[in-house]
Amino acid sequence: MSINTFGRLFQVTTWGESHGPALGATVDGCPPGVPLEPTMLQHWLDRRKPGQNKFTTQRREADEVEILSGVFEGQTTGTPVQLMIRNTDQRSKDYSGIMDKFRPGHADITYWQKYGIRDYRGGGRSSARETAARVAAGGLAREAIRALAPAITITGYMVQMGPLSIDRDRFDTDQIDQNPFWSPDAAAADIWAGYLDDLRKSGSSVGAVIEVRARGVPAGLGAPVYGKLDTDLAAAMMSINAVKGVEIGEGMAAATLTGEANADEITMGPDGPEFSSNHAGGILGGISTGQDIVVRFAVKPTSSILTPRKTITKSGEATEIVTKGRHDPCVGIRAVPVGEAMMACTILDHLLLHRGQIGENRGRIG
Amino acid sequence: MSINTFGRLFQVTTWGESHGPALGATVDGCPPGVPLEPTMLQHWLDRRKPGQNKFTTQRREADEVEILSGVFEGQTTGTPVQLMIRNTDQRSKDYSGIMDKFRPGHADITYWQKYGIRDYRGGGRSSARETAARVAAGGLAREAIRALAPAITITGYMVQMGPLSIDRDRFDTDQIDQNPFWSPDAAAADIWAGYLDDLRKSGSSVGAVIEVRARGVPAGLGAPVYGKLDTDLAAAMMSINAVKGVEIGEGMAAATLTGEANADEITMGPDGPEFSSNHAGGILGGISTGQDIVVRFAVKPTSSILTPRKTITKSGEATEIVTKGRHDPCVGIRAVPVGEAMMACTILDHLLLHRGQIGENRGRIG
Amino acid sequence: MSINTFGRLFQVTTWGESHGPALGATVDGCPPGVPLEPTMLQHWLDRRKPGQNKFTTQRREADEVEILSGVFEGQTTGTPVQLMIRNTDQRSKDYSGIMDKFRPGHADITYWQKYGIRDYRGGGRSSARETAARVAAGGLAREAIRALAPAITITGYMVQMGPLSIDRDRFDTDQIDQNPFWSPDAAAADIWAGYLDDLRKSGSSVGAVIEVRARGVPAGLGAPVYGKLDTDLAAAMMSINAVKGVEIGEGMAAATLTGEANADEITMGPDGPEFSSNHAGGILGGISTGQDIVVRFAVKPTSSILTPRKTITKSGEATEIVTKGRHDPCVGIRAVPVGEAMMACTILDHLLLHRGQIGENRGRIG
Amino acid sequence: MSINTFGRLFQVTTWGESHGPALGATVDGCPPGVPLEPTMLQHWLDRRKPGQNKFTTQRREADEVEILSGVFEGQTTGTPVQLMIRNTDQRSKDYSGIMDKFRPGHADITYWQKYGIRDYRGGGRSSARETAARVAAGGLAREAIRALAPAITITGYMVQMGPLSIDRDRFDTDQIDQNPFWSPDAAAADIWAGYLDDLRKSGSSVGAVIEVRARGVPAGLGAPVYGKLDTDLAAAMMSINAVKGVEIGEGMAAATLTGEANADEITMGPDGPEFSSNHAGGILGGISTGQDIVVRFAVKPTSSILTPRKTITKSGEATEIVTKGRHDPCVGIRAVPVGEAMMACTILDHLLLHRGQIGENRGRIG
Repeated sequence: MSINTFGRLFQVTTWGESHGPALGATVDGCPPGVPLEPTMLQHWLDRRKPGQNKFTTQRREADEVEILSGVFEGQTTGTPVQLMIRNTDQRSKDYSGIMDKFRPGHADITYWQKYGIRDYRGGGRSSARETAARVAAGGLAREAIRALAPAITITGYMVQMGPLSIDRDRFDTDQIDQNPFWSPDAAAADIWAGYLDDLRKSGSSVGAVIEVRARGVPAGLGAPVYGKLDTDLAAAMMSINAVKGVEIGEGMAAATLTGEANADEITMGPDGPEFSSNHAGGILGGISTGQDIVVRFAVKPTSSILTPRKTITKSGEATEIVTKGRHDPCVGIRAVPVGEAMMACTILDHLLLHRGQIGENRGRIG
Repeated sequence: MSINTFGRLFQVTTWGESHGPALGATVDGCPPGVPLEPTMLQHWLDRRKPGQNKFTTQRREADEVEILSGVFEGQTTGTPVQLMIRNTDQRSKDYSGIMDKFRPGHADITYWQKYGIRDYRGGGRSSARETAARVAAGGLAREAIRALAPAITITGYMVQMGPLSIDRDRFDTDQIDQNPFWSPDAAAADIWAGYLDDLRKSGSSVGAVIEVRARGVPAGLGAPVYGKLDTDLAAAMMSINAVKGVEIGEGMAAATLTGEANADEITMGPDGPEFSSNHAGGILGGISTGQDIVVRFAVKPTSSILTPRKTITKSGEATEIVTKGRHDPCVGIRAVPVGEAMMACTILDHLLLHRGQIGENRGRIG
Repeated sequence: MSINTFGRLFQVTTWGESHGPALGATVDGCPPGVPLEPTMLQHWLDRRKPGQNKFTTQRREADEVEILSGVFEGQTTGTPVQLMIRNTDQRSKDYSGIMDKFRPGHADITYWQKYGIRDYRGGGRSSARETAARVAAGGLAREAIRALAPAITITGYMVQMGPLSIDRDRFDTDQIDQNPFWSPDAAAADIWAGYLDDLRKSGSSVGAVIEVRARGVPAGLGAPVYGKLDTDLAAAMMSINAVKGVEIGEGMAAATLTGEANADEITMGPDGPEFSSNHAGGILGGISTGQDIVVRFAVKPTSSILTPRKTITKSGEATEIVTKGRHDPCVGIRAVPVGEAMMACTILDHLLLHRGQIGENRGRIG
Repeated sequence: MSINTFGRLFQVTTWGESHGPALGATVDGCPPGVPLEPTMLQHWLDRRKPGQNKFTTQRREADEVEILSGVFEGQTTGTPVQLMIRNTDQRSKDYSGIMDKFRPGHADITYWQKYGIRDYRGGGRSSARETAARVAAGGLAREAIRALAPAITITGYMVQMGPLSIDRDRFDTDQIDQNPFWSPDAAAADIWAGYLDDLRKSGSSVGAVIEVRARGVPAGLGAPVYGKLDTDLAAAMMSINAVKGVEIGEGMAAATLTGEANADEITMGPDGPEFSSNHAGGILGGISTGQDIVVRFAVKPTSSILTPRKTITKSGEATEIVTKGRHDPCVGIRAVPVGEAMMACTILDHLLLHRGQIGENRGRIG
């Protein structure tokens, strides 16, 4: 398996660096006959695009995606789809000050130690810019899902910024697109705006928690024991830059529950089994139940900050570092569409895997 | 890729059900020349073995491992190692009551819907008994690591049971083996003993948080962007039965930090770079820093409890269920050696991957 | 990918050595609900079993297969199927003479150089005995094919022994089971019997060509460009011990044809496209046409012969070697059921892959 | 595993169609620090380039390769290398006559049946144009091999055109670059020139046999039992368009030999083991011996010919077809650099795999 590839039957290989000529995703295994136009992908890329408001990096990238292969007369052909995004607003001189220094909390030092060479411009391969390719691939996955299982919807949103969480009682899906933080709680968005503006002005940064929900996923997706749906989702989300934790359903809080409290009791509804609650996050034994799939992940604060931090140079000398590039005070914001993309790719992969081994669900209830 | 296989170069495929004749692990890709005797594996299996005290299931399995292939005159040959464990204490009649019912919070319903057939005896393939095979494979991984990178040590321990956490100020590695909970905090272990005994008597269960630490791991392991060391660890831990959340370093709490607080500042020590703290959990950009690798995961409470829960039958009729089998009041206890095994397999896999692509680290500091 | 694993969705990992306690196949990805009893597999193992007549090795192995997992109440459950065969007639002392010498034409020297350790007893992992596990897995694949695409039949036969080929005009499928060589030409079988008896008595050996035909395979299996059906078949057959060449359809002779001669003209028949000939061996562009899939492979003569050959010892000294173990004068004979098994596994894998990506064929003709 | 990906640690995913905007190879797993400039790849692409003489298609493509990622300051960084080649001389109108018809012997009919959509322009994904991407990736593999194992040389040449074979007694490596057929036998090249000119003028085509030799490959590469070096080479070569047979060493002729004749006797030379002959083609038990690796493959004649052939339309009606596009009378010629590229990729992959599992060869002789 390639280390820059994600997925088993729907395989996404991303490539490219922050300041190279282009980056992209080579997507193999897409079903044929899926309608695909660049605008369908652009819609999602525009959500992740930098420079849209004062809360994200001021780098201005068009992030225009070109489809170089695998599509004929507006439909996928079943052969590899190459999605390319040209880099257009690289300002490499911004980074000359960090050429020989390692930013604390950044991949600088480990890339150097491992490879003995690194494209330090904008973080090179370790830049969050890589996630643009994921979003493009996720857009394709969404179109394929629409063709295969149109009931599925995938929605990401921020549920916590720094120490400030949303109030679940104010959760309103319609609010998500109405604020720059993808917050389902309009009041929280207001609070975050002030909080983050202060951080931004001081050149600091802060972490966040993102939740991604897949609704309408049929029961039966996932497989024991290393291809569980939650296993693959954990890998998908943890692979996103700066992510330090992943939760399914109750997540870490499941540790605090008793068996009685944690049980999602089952009843029979008009369309099949129903559950009294969703502590499981829609997955039991690694296989989807038909409930909402609920995943959360924590994004750490950007390591690129204006406050000087102690570090060393390549030659081992002590120094300090300040990162003056154009950075996100809360990278978690732009991680929302990335998390959605990873959810879409994972769900599609499991739809295909399930069809491959099983065809259709074989066990009837009722 | 097989769905019951974990790892890229060191590949572990587990097989077997709770109440079949045997279960085991087919381990492919182990380096040759690793000393291996069954007793080396038995040591780790004995730690996971059920029935050792009143806090784990009373099923009594010898869990004796047989090495059927891949070892010649006490050394691995580089060909597949088959590790088999016979099941000896199956009491299948215990489970007849759940043959046609689905336990809330258990894989019963999803296996049925997906496959249309399930070995309901003891949970079949979804039983935590599968983890015995992981522990055996992890034992082999430990021996291979000892040959390749002897400085590495891997230690798992429980840091939280239900709502009760350890006190990090009392952390004492030597305590871990001295209590039935693998607690590094002797005082916490005492408290947990009383707490869990009450739960056990009432037929209830509770969750837990396990931490696994790998010390002495060289810098440079892991790879962008989907084969990050933390990505693979997240998948490894999430694949363990009942796990609902995985954290690296600060984990979910990273969301609450500012960039200044989260930065692990770097200085030059006598043996290379040193860090002022380890918020990163030993991994930057998916690649190990040389610091301790720190992973935590939350285990939910066992769904098999004595309190009746509402559920349905295969024919869709409403009913209640009580699970009378021999179960663990806190499966998190026995998850400790399992987490260690997954860490060992993952680290070994990345040692081999790193050697394959890179040979030895190429970037010098100082 | 594991190096002892074959297949993508239907994955077979074989393990075990010639003189270890057991060998077997870990089969992952089998669809659920496939009827399976040991006798169904034993049927195919008995065809490969040694010691059945004077033309095969006199080692007497029961080759009894045990199903250790993945089957419940006579049906596959969709979880890994472990197929184990105990070794019962190892006579390891036969091999002590070759412990420190390398047989010309055998894996002895390369295993030693690579691994620095080898189980020299009976060839260890490089023994043709490994193919018993393939035959067991192939038996399972046949049952799964029967459930998915019952029109498919897979038939292997010998078409050449040493310099002696069958006469295609005398091809009679019914003859294949009627002679010890799986020859479709009864007259050739008679000639081969005398020829091989002479070789056997002189302690020599000879090569052979095997052909395997899959009939009733639907159009559409296979995929560009590295997962072509013929690519996978070439790998499957070349992986069999002692195979040195693989041909699809016209095979090497395709080099001698002009475009006119090689064209399989297409007409419309009552059930779809028909072809005037089958130079293509049932595969165009890597995808099945609906015609017979035709694969041939050449098996070299056993390197274990009674005539002394020059070789060296581990310490580099010149010596001679004679192999006195119980060997096959023409290993090609027992390669017939092995080739069938590899065909069955490959076809099943592609049935599942096709269903995964495509569902059902999407292009209509007529 | 992706179906458009080849290799395990050095993974090449090709993408693109004959008449799309571009095609290329996404190469993952390349070691870092390999010097790489576009000219190094262009050298090999120029050998495969069409339109160089009257014996190859008159399509004129610059086949200029762009390196879009994975290289920094003239060296590989260890991250994915994207190699893109723009299509510049598509004349799509040439193909309008075959939009609804299926060329006998071509992938037209199978792609249609499987996918229900196909890019018929120039064969789309099934075009031999895809092999340009392989040659680019092979060029990169050669540079990585040069860095890892500089003694290795890889040389391809044509040994048979139609019924006309070279005379091995006239084999002269220096001749290979001196004629348009990559023939090591100058006299054969002369004969072929006349033969092929006649075929070309009549609008016909013919097959060929290519041999690829890797010299200087160290002993120990390859692995049992499905990752044998010959298994992977068989797959690599069979995956090339129009290939119908693959041979290692003696190949199909091994069937005619006795054990005595086939034995490559072993003696001790100054630098290690030496062999009296190379029937094995440099591979024993799937592992390299240190001798020349010798692979041959047969390429069928192009199905695009001027003589009318019977076929059907998409609606099932009988018709005839003549292909008027610009085609190769003997595609085998341009398959020579492709075979070299596949050899280079396979050898590099096994160098990395060997280093990953083994480090360095562990068994000493002498």
